[in-house]
Amino acid sequence: MIQTIQYKNKAVVIIDQTRLPARCGYKECRTVRALWQAIKRLEVRGAPALGVAAAYGAVLAVQDADGSRGALVRRLEAACAYLATARPTAVNLFRGLDRVRAIPARYPLAETAELKRLIRAEAEAVADEDRSACRAMGDYGARLIRSGDPVMTICNAGALATVDYGTALGVFYSAHRQGKKICVYACETRPLLQGARLTAWELGQAGIRTILITDNMAAAVMREKKIRAVVVGADRIAANGDAANKIGTYGLAVLARAHRIPFYVAAPGMTVDLSVKNGAGIPIEERSADEVRRIAGRRVAPEGVEVYNPAFDVTPARLITAFITERGIIWPPFTREIKKNFQQHHHGARRGR
Amino acid sequence: MIQTIQYKNKAVVIIDQTRLPARCGYKECRTVRALWQAIKRLEVRGAPALGVAAAYGAVLAVQDADGSRGALVRRLEAACAYLATARPTAVNLFRGLDRVRAIPARYPLAETAELKRLIRAEAEAVADEDRSACRAMGDYGARLIRSGDPVMTICNAGALATVDYGTALGVFYSAHRQGKKICVYACETRPLLQGARLTAWELGQAGIRTILITDNMAAAVMREKKIRAVVVGADRIAANGDAANKIGTYGLAVLARAHRIPFYVAAPGMTVDLSVKNGAGIPIEERSADEVRRIAGRRVAPEGVEVYNPAFDVTPARLITAFITERGIIWPPFTREIKKNFQQHHHGARRGR
Repeated sequence: MIQTIQYKNKAVVIIDQTRLPARCGYKECRTVRALWQAIKRLEVRGAPALGVAAAYGAVLAVQDADGSRGALVRRLEAACAYLATARPTAVNLFRGLDRVRAIPARYPLAETAELKRLIRAEAEAVADEDRSACRAMGDYGARLIRSGDPVMTICNAGALATVDYGTALGVFYSAHRQGKKICVYACETRPLLQGARLTAWELGQAGIRTILITDNMAAAVMREKKIRAVVVGADRIAANGDAANKIGTYGLAVLARAHRIPFYVAAPGMTVDLSVKNGAGIPIEERSADEVRRIAGRRVAPEGVEVYNPAFDVTPARLITAFITERGIIWPPFTREIKKNFQQHHHGARRGR
Repeated sequence: MIQTIQYKNKAVVIIDQTRLPARCGYKECRTVRALWQAIKRLEVRGAPALGVAAAYGAVLAVQDADGSRGALVRRLEAACAYLATARPTAVNLFRGLDRVRAIPARYPLAETAELKRLIRAEAEAVADEDRSACRAMGDYGARLIRSGDPVMTICNAGALATVDYGTALGVFYSAHRQGKKICVYACETRPLLQGARLTAWELGQAGIRTILITDNMAAAVMREKKIRAVVVGADRIAANGDAANKIGTYGLAVLARAHRIPFYVAAPGMTVDLSVKNGAGIPIEERSADEVRRIAGRRVAPEGVEVYNPAFDVTPARLITAFITERGIIWPPFTREIKKNFQQHHHGARRGR
């Protein structure tokens, strides 16, 4: 399996995803600044992976600390505040930071060396929990997929968006391992083509039949190819079940409803943000106009044309059939069921900007 | 105004649209084969422009004929049969060919020189009718657009898809000329980016505010920007009002309905095909997988990944609010109203493959 992110030899080692599929190379981030840039540039991306990256970022910040406990805590706080500015939408980033930032208060007597060990252990725990959450989601979710089902996904909610297995794609991996035949229609996901570059690549590596389509083909494919399920990831889920995910997800949800296709959101509890009542409270990142005007460095539109480029949209809870989580499948009513299953995740949660 | 296609100095002169927006250059097609290739490669495209191109193609075929009437007719028939194989979906191509092919039978006593003149005149008539149909559609359609309306379109149903004014974009041009403020959200239209390359370019030339979005942003933009109308072109309209148009159009129609946004199809009577009962009878062109795997020559997906690449989809009549035609706005019931307005276009119509 792909190792999307790990902490090794005092560096956060990531697959530089901007190079895929042409090259699958690892990149070492040795400083908090280098990691911040890797996040900003989407060299590492995907909500769960961002949570792990953020926690490892704190490890980078303190790994060479050899002064007082107070000095270490100041370093930690500064690094967390800085990393929190990298991207605004995925709540996992803030969750990962909260987890490591809480360590000094949890261990008021621990000195520098011990705190460094505890922060590293907490970051590894975030990574381990992601690994096991993905397996659990995959296995629960696979129950919803029948052999022979053509399914659809957008963006990359796979191994490359997590430590190593995926959320939405984890469902397909588990179904595939169970011997079910599936055929995944992957929306290419403009502007940055995570579907074409990442999802088609990693599903291909796993031997799962994948058919690449452009985003505007989704409606025709749903109708003609009799799609049986749409499975997507999420970057933040509000208390009422409204879910932010890659731009285009909301459109797929509307189309799925019109074609009576179940629409599933696969995401771990860490993606739930009970402090946000509904989707209106989720900050949506807008990115550079050149992501739309240019593709792979080539200009494809008139120079200077006005562009709107939100990186995410919000799918209202009413269009979501169920959530696939590590606690099982969550059916409506979402407000009650999400609270029941994920209230403990709420403590210490912080909102993005 | 742009001159997309004209017959001049014994050549069909087109704007090579594959070079836009980087370069706006003219290309001369001096033979039927050169024109066939220009159509195949989408150097000239758009249903109405294809009708005109096809008719001019017949002129190319016979312009140097100096033998018997019979020899000319054989040349004409061969050229028409050949040009009909260039692209299957837009019925205008077949209509344009039917118009010129019918000339010898209409003038049974005309000799070679006279037939050449009559065929040329018929091709010019096809072009002139397109010019005036576009103006009429623009003016009728503009009544549906209020000042201040944000509107949306896909692909390019503009001057570049017709002789010189456009169908869907003609509506915006007319509204703009009437002093209405409009703001057009242009879907980029993968795989070949006609929205980004052509629509954003020609609306920009006309001074109309245009905001370029990727196709998967349409749903979020409809909701957030309060889109008031979606206006698109068509490649073939069946007797019941089902309309084939660029891939993605059907999805926009579903999304428009979900957001209670009027969805208008602007197309001349020449695009109506009464010989096709409903959308199921319209042949849909599938194009090369590399159009999806590569963008502007750069590979953006794993080598050899499976691709589905239909160039068109069919929007069912029930999702269409009205047709904007040169005869006026056509409201439901479409089967009756289309027949009433366009029955005379039916004679001599041929189906694509």
